[in-house]
Amino acid sequence: MQRLLLFSLFIFGLFSFDLLAAQNNDPSASRPYLSIAKQIIETALSHGQAYEMLEELTLDIGPRLSGSPEAAAAVAWGRQTMLKLGFDNVHLQEVMVPHWVRGPVETARVINSSIVGTAELTVCALGGSVGTPELGIIGEVVEVQSLEEVQFLGKAIRGKIIFYNRPMNPGLVNTFAAYGGAVNQRSRGAIEAAKVGAVAVLVRSMTTRLDQVPHTGAMRYEENVTQIPAAAISTIDANFLSDLIKQEGKVEVNLRLSCRTLPDVPSANVVGEITGSEIPEEVIVLGGHLDSWDKGHGAHDDGAGCVQSIEALRLLKSLGLKPKRTLRAVLFMNEENGARGGKTYAEYVEKHGPKHIAAIESDRGGFTPGGFSVKADSGIVESFSDWEYLFQAMAADKIIPGFGGVDINPLAEKFGIPTIGLLVESHRYFDYHHSDHDTFDKVNERELELGAAAMAILAYVIAMEGVPD
Amino acid sequence: MQRLLLFSLFIFGLFSFDLLAAQNNDPSASRPYLSIAKQIIETALSHGQAYEMLEELTLDIGPRLSGSPEAAAAVAWGRQTMLKLGFDNVHLQEVMVPHWVRGPVETARVINSSIVGTAELTVCALGGSVGTPELGIIGEVVEVQSLEEVQFLGKAIRGKIIFYNRPMNPGLVNTFAAYGGAVNQRSRGAIEAAKVGAVAVLVRSMTTRLDQVPHTGAMRYEENVTQIPAAAISTIDANFLSDLIKQEGKVEVNLRLSCRTLPDVPSANVVGEITGSEIPEEVIVLGGHLDSWDKGHGAHDDGAGCVQSIEALRLLKSLGLKPKRTLRAVLFMNEENGARGGKTYAEYVEKHGPKHIAAIESDRGGFTPGGFSVKADSGIVESFSDWEYLFQAMAADKIIPGFGGVDINPLAEKFGIPTIGLLVESHRYFDYHHSDHDTFDKVNERELELGAAAMAILAYVIAMEGVPD
Repeated sequence: MQRLLLFSLFIFGLFSFDLLAAQNNDPSASRPYLSIAKQIIETALSHGQAYEMLEELTLDIGPRLSGSPEAAAAVAWGRQTMLKLGFDNVHLQEVMVPHWVRGPVETARVINSSIVGTAELTVCALGGSVGTPELGIIGEVVEVQSLEEVQFLGKAIRGKIIFYNRPMNPGLVNTFAAYGGAVNQRSRGAIEAAKVGAVAVLVRSMTTRLDQVPHTGAMRYEENVTQIPAAAISTIDANFLSDLIKQEGKVEVNLRLSCRTLPDVPSANVVGEITGSEIPEEVIVLGGHLDSWDKGHGAHDDGAGCVQSIEALRLLKSLGLKPKRTLRAVLFMNEENGARGGKTYAEYVEKHGPKHIAAIESDRGGFTPGGFSVKADSGIVESFSDWEYLFQAMAADKIIPGFGGVDINPLAEKFGIPTIGLLVESHRYFDYHHSDHDTFDKVNERELELGAAAMAILAYVIAMEGVPD
Repeated sequence: MQRLLLFSLFIFGLFSFDLLAAQNNDPSASRPYLSIAKQIIETALSHGQAYEMLEELTLDIGPRLSGSPEAAAAVAWGRQTMLKLGFDNVHLQEVMVPHWVRGPVETARVINSSIVGTAELTVCALGGSVGTPELGIIGEVVEVQSLEEVQFLGKAIRGKIIFYNRPMNPGLVNTFAAYGGAVNQRSRGAIEAAKVGAVAVLVRSMTTRLDQVPHTGAMRYEENVTQIPAAAISTIDANFLSDLIKQEGKVEVNLRLSCRTLPDVPSANVVGEITGSEIPEEVIVLGGHLDSWDKGHGAHDDGAGCVQSIEALRLLKSLGLKPKRTLRAVLFMNEENGARGGKTYAEYVEKHGPKHIAAIESDRGGFTPGGFSVKADSGIVESFSDWEYLFQAMAADKIIPGFGGVDINPLAEKFGIPTIGLLVESHRYFDYHHSDHDTFDKVNERELELGAAAMAILAYVIAMEGVPD
């Protein structure tokens, strides 16, 4: 067995030499931080812990709707995790959050059909919706493609159930653009329908996938407009209902929802840092949102962003890197139905400091990173893109102008600092988003860890060099 | 309801106008084919049929090991599918293939352990392996990290079972590079072990994932070297076995495999075309391999490549595009354990023509396309990369030198023509590859269809312009 040992040492020696070489052949004057970036990428892929953390957050705790016991457990988990990892200045920041509950009943049934008799439709209440009376609401279903069509139809649809059925455009490569093109039906559909006297709305689920799983998400009401119930319908049943209307002419549905909004409750953002070694008074935020909808596990949305934010700091610590400025991981509460965490955070910073210079958010799912979208003056975005070479090895080198993130946006608005969103491969996201499909098993370990590496590299370089101008 | 109809017509009018505009605002002199590329992408994402075809091939037929009844069914399916789609010159090309069968028994059991008593290890025979005697082989397990270590140890391991346990390097961003760095243990492990008198080999599964599913794959024997049985062991059990050896010193395993090789049987490549409108005598091949291992569904490897090759032609037909040169979809048989289909195809072309000018293969899984790797003179690769702008809209614009594909490689060797591999996002592939995890549900519809679009665009441009020089 001694020969084995000798051989093993020989092999280990070879590997060590390679590692050493990788560390020493850089930084060159022209491409600083390149060897550090490579080291962060390799370490994230070989020894990353984001996936393990996500397993805890999603399988041990589960979905984490604002105000729920699970959201409270997630806050405790976040704090304990940061303490265990030796982060500095770990603390909670109180946030009052809405407390909407789904309740046990959500059904929609076609009734009195001469073709199918009755038929159950797969639906779920949209977040924030009022419920129906216990025995439900009955109305004729009117299919529309847009808010404008509802305005156009006007009082003709008084007393009816409006069925918004404009699909996300599957022909767009970027699914977020497709989502953006359809989601106003969900967010404002009940308002426009109520204005013309409709009694409820059904909204085609926001996904390009054909399946039987409804996708929830936020909807809004407007002052002085009647609050009517709103539910998402699965894409398969949306097609079924549309076809039934075409063939039958008049289709009636009985909709029952037990959801309701309770008084606001206290919750919290979770904050932890690596305090800067030279300029600790300047902060770069890395964040995701800790709350999720009450469907699936909230794995991609946005357990991923939370564990990546923690992992980015852990990676830098584990490599012994000492950022000059302070890097702060923030797990924001209540992005999904109020964004109170992000607002509260920015308000606190406005009153009490410290000075923030940039913020990075991951909230597009834990998929293969592709780059960053930067909300800043175009000159600053240009300057950020000088760092693209750091992300070429992982093919995440698209640094482009764009939105930063919902939770960090108040920082952009209050202080004009650059806010930066992690861009990821988007094809799968809306298959899972806000639905029972958003579970831990849909997350690939390597993709998730690589996203954490991308955030760690960018945050570290900003911490060392400041925001480029 | 008439107002609804009017409104719908209004909306439809708007969309039609957009489509028309998209078609007319191009081609400009400087970026030819750009509007066609966009149309192909949009059509693939909105109305693609690759996913439906893959469902038939994987869920209706299943895994398709060369020589199996399922492989024969897949040949019939391929031919019928091409006929149904109206392809020209649909035909089968006979290929004699190896006929290896797994049989019902594959077990490995730790015996006589003072620590655990006995323990079942999750294993599966490597493809092409001989079986063991009915009651199995018993041997002490010697863990090694490489073929070189086996040579180094030499006769010290006579009579033992060699356990190759060098993992794929998880730190590499490109998992194919990690696979390339580990796979010689699987392909040549039994040869080197037998040369020094070992009685069997266990090989750590080729995946960076830790789980309980063994990954099969091809292994080889060499003339005049004893043929010893070879099995893959799951990564979790590889770690278990390694730890047990560390603690116990001497660990014995009883390995039982019922696999065996039967006489070669006839099978076939499936061929269908769009005959060129102006230069039909010049052919561009688009291909994948129709056979798979007998684990999972052979969905990513390589059901995906087959349906993408068919779909690429179908897309062009459905858009009324008339390629000047002939585009030929080829579903190659027997890539996994012999590559006979690719060899037979090239031999046939050598004898009977027609002239081939390029070949494109998809065999890296049905994931988000990233570009193409081109095996050709560097000048030609450069020229291909002038077309990168056609793939920017789908972020698949990396055209780089590299390997084309196993099935089309004989065309490169015989005729020196460019062979081109579809590059895809690689993080998930080896989680599934050659294992029970390679099932239809692991394929994302949009990613798959987009790969077909990428192949269609490149093939069409070559068909119109010829190979660039």
